[in-house]
Amino acid sequence: MRVANPGDRVLSFAKTMVSFVGTVTDFAVLAPQPAEFGALGAGWANNGWLLPVRWERLLKPVRPASELRQLAPLLPSRYSPIQSANGKGNQKMYLAEISVAVFDLLVKLGNRIEKIDGDLPVAPSAAIFTEAIDDREAERIRNDDSLSITERKQSILARRGQGRFRSNVEILERRCRVTGLTNESLLIASHIKPWRFCVSSVERLDGHNGLLLAPHVDRLFDRGFISFEDDGKILVSSRLVADDIRCLGLEAALANRGGTFTTKHAQFLEFHRAMIYLRSYG
Amino acid sequence: MRVANPGDRVLSFAKTMVSFVGTVTDFAVLAPQPAEFGALGAGWANNGWLLPVRWERLLKPVRPASELRQLAPLLPSRYSPIQSANGKGNQKMYLAEISVAVFDLLVKLGNRIEKIDGDLPVAPSAAIFTEAIDDREAERIRNDDSLSITERKQSILARRGQGRFRSNVEILERRCRVTGLTNESLLIASHIKPWRFCVSSVERLDGHNGLLLAPHVDRLFDRGFISFEDDGKILVSSRLVADDIRCLGLEAALANRGGTFTTKHAQFLEFHRAMIYLRSYG
Repeated sequence: MRVANPGDRVLSFAKTMVSFVGTVTDFAVLAPQPAEFGALGAGWANNGWLLPVRWERLLKPVRPASELRQLAPLLPSRYSPIQSANGKGNQKMYLAEISVAVFDLLVKLGNRIEKIDGDLPVAPSAAIFTEAIDDREAERIRNDDSLSITERKQSILARRGQGRFRSNVEILERRCRVTGLTNESLLIASHIKPWRFCVSSVERLDGHNGLLLAPHVDRLFDRGFISFEDDGKILVSSRLVADDIRCLGLEAALANRGGTFTTKHAQFLEFHRAMIYLRSYG
Repeated sequence: MRVANPGDRVLSFAKTMVSFVGTVTDFAVLAPQPAEFGALGAGWANNGWLLPVRWERLLKPVRPASELRQLAPLLPSRYSPIQSANGKGNQKMYLAEISVAVFDLLVKLGNRIEKIDGDLPVAPSAAIFTEAIDDREAERIRNDDSLSITERKQSILARRGQGRFRSNVEILERRCRVTGLTNESLLIASHIKPWRFCVSSVERLDGHNGLLLAPHVDRLFDRGFISFEDDGKILVSSRLVADDIRCLGLEAALANRGGTFTTKHAQFLEFHRAMIYLRSYG
């Protein structure tokens, strides 16, 4: 899932049929498994990758098993999502790469593409999903009798980098590590391990789980386009294109290096580098 | 209220006593009158200026009427918030300028300053109030039977610049007018007339009430540090200091000029320039 880039084309193959063709609209984000939505907060194990895709319906759904004569020669001998012997799916795979030839054949057999009407008029962004996850988590906290009223209030405020979380961050950080910005009206108190994945109000309010960042740097960090090494070095994902860095006026700033992080910061940074940062693949 | 700057000192004078001394922590923001919180949506008339202040309590509250001998010579002859003849308040004024000498005298008479414990551990920011206003407005929309389920859903998504509002903006705007950024993962669909002041779901979802902005530009626009003339010229508030512009890497970009706005944009821009943009005073 994490290898996919916006603009990549995908096919949905379920119940023996290819019925949908899609376009990846954003990078994959860590998210709770849909079935476990209510149990958020139990740690990494319940999380998976959510890939935003805009789907369109094939007018004539295709059964690969019925098209083996044309299809089989195009399938790879290893790691094929469709078994070339019988056209059945490979149950071990969730998302697998196929060749352009296979994609084009299946879409052609599907006749033509019909847009799906629905409530989502735009390409789904990662933000639309993470907001929904955050909303559910906020609702859970609001009803969590094991927390004091103040803990609940401060935990909710922390979602937007406000309240006690922000003051805790401000004790440790004074300025944006990337741009040097100090204006409090502009700085954002950003979670290193995102708010929605914090497993306790302690983690949500921990000043070591935060950075003060300029708004555009906050966005890059939140979306995984940048991260930090424990020694303060800024990691810039190869998936952030040079033109965007130039538009954002960050060419020089991203070469900066803030101070070394404490070991308490480091445990949160490890999560960010592993689960949020958009590494390079291939 | 709008003349106040972060760092300005203020005194609270109520019921004949000066009991609190405060520090302005952010620029004033437009907000519904507290008594009318529930009636949001009736237009400008119900709105007023909210000035974020961190208050401290005077150990010995001061009654100006009892300190006239020292106080009267320091008070101005016109526009004084305290009447020099009798030490009573001037009921026509809500927030008035006083001299440093008057301030220092009253704080000295108040003996010393005691911090107020409370739920707000940090300097209150404008954002903490606008989020609270937004939360109430979202709750109101969620329960508004006069709107269809889809209108409610899309109105709520519009708060974060998502859903139909975003697609409506994307029809009209292709890139950040200030930086030229085109990356959809980074661009924010920002309301010109803020979401919380829109009086209908039509206004909330109107593509002409939106701009696609880079995150730092969105923040400057949202907080009133910049605005736009109808002809596309960028207005930069004198209250945004040059050092911040430099840190944000926007020195060159703020001299840019996007295309002229349509008359439909212009009606929303008028609101932004009048009610959000931080004009210069004095």
